Amino acid sequence: MSHKVAGPEIEQLIALLAKLPGLGPRSARRAALHLIKKRESLMQPLANSMAQAAEKITVCPSCGNIDVLSPCAICSDERRNQTMIIVVEEVGDLWALERARVSNALYHVLGGVLSPLDGINPEDLNIPRLIERASTNSVSEVLLALNATIEGQSTSHYLVEQLAPCNVKISQLAHGVPVGGELDFLDEGTLAAAIKARKEM
Amino acid sequence: MSHKVAGPEIEQLIALLAKLPGLGPRSARRAALHLIKKRESLMQPLANSMAQAAEKITVCPSCGNIDVLSPCAICSDERRNQTMIIVVEEVGDLWALERARVSNALYHVLGGVLSPLDGINPEDLNIPRLIERASTNSVSEVLLALNATIEGQSTSHYLVEQLAPCNVKISQLAHGVPVGGELDFLDEGTLAAAIKARKEM
Repeated sequence: MSHKVAGPEIEQLIALLAKLPGLGPRSARRAALHLIKKRESLMQPLANSMAQAAEKITVCPSCGNIDVLSPCAICSDERRNQTMIIVVEEVGDLWALERARVSNALYHVLGGVLSPLDGINPEDLNIPRLIERASTNSVSEVLLALNATIEGQSTSHYLVEQLAPCNVKISQLAHGVPVGGELDFLDEGTLAAAIKARKEM
Repeated sequence: MSHKVAGPEIEQLIALLAKLPGLGPRSARRAALHLIKKRESLMQPLANSMAQAAEKITVCPSCGNIDVLSPCAICSDERRNQTMIIVVEEVGDLWALERARVSNALYHVLGGVLSPLDGINPEDLNIPRLIERASTNSVSEVLLALNATIEGQSTSHYLVEQLAPCNVKISQLAHGVPVGGELDFLDEGTLAAAIKARKEM
């Protein structure tokens, strides 16, 4: 959209909405009109919800998950299996595994994968804290649940080396995860099978 | 998404985002994660923008456009052609015509089209104010720029009857608008051609 047709307040709203993944300029305009039509039932609550989230949500200092609690609700939940840590790339992957209800273990969010070409090196990921956690006596297994991409797999190999001194079993998701696929797009059955058939590395 | 995996604040944010047109449950989760990652550069500004818009934006009492000004910036602009009113269904159609920069006239937003099956009758549309405006001496032409749908065309015919006593020329967009098409999806050339070749009814 080159030509501005609505007032600056509406244009700003459209411009910000267009920055959301999945919304382009046209769908951002439609979303803005929808919000303005549903001012009281949607726009005001969404504004409040975002403002609250922006204020309250923090990154869990232990696992890298996001939550309004710190440590997060998963790390704080003593009923969870404290002996196993599932390592994922992003919070969205953690959500995918939780939605599938296939494990009761703890998580560790790396915040990405190694990708030297993109300038992402070990020091850019949440690795030292993982090694620290894996070194505690209560933890007996680390399951590397990274995406089945080149970067994910090379990151897994790097983590196997780094975790070697920690005296824990290291496993990875079973084949069953399609090569090149991403966790967030898999069905729960595939995720469950992949966890069940995980292999020691 | 049946199983709630994030805290209630995040789940509420996702649920509200999923109500936007064009976003489903999955893309709403991705949008929420994106917002949380870009908390200061996107989530906070968007929250403020929505809160401001929800507070400030009003429906123009004259034409039915939305704006923070009342009457709206178009109705208040004395340089515009005061002799012609372009009648559209929705604000999005007004935006489409303004983006195409094909007319300098005033607008009138009906707020929908007649659709007895959906329970939308003349009294649900912004028609009395249109007749009032069309009856003023300064207005000499009313251009019916409704969608080329069955409902749009039957609404046009209804408006021709209602506007008959107003002593104005009544025109409609030229054929050139594809049958069944909607204004908001047309390119500027088509819109310009349709305005130029408008026909008296």
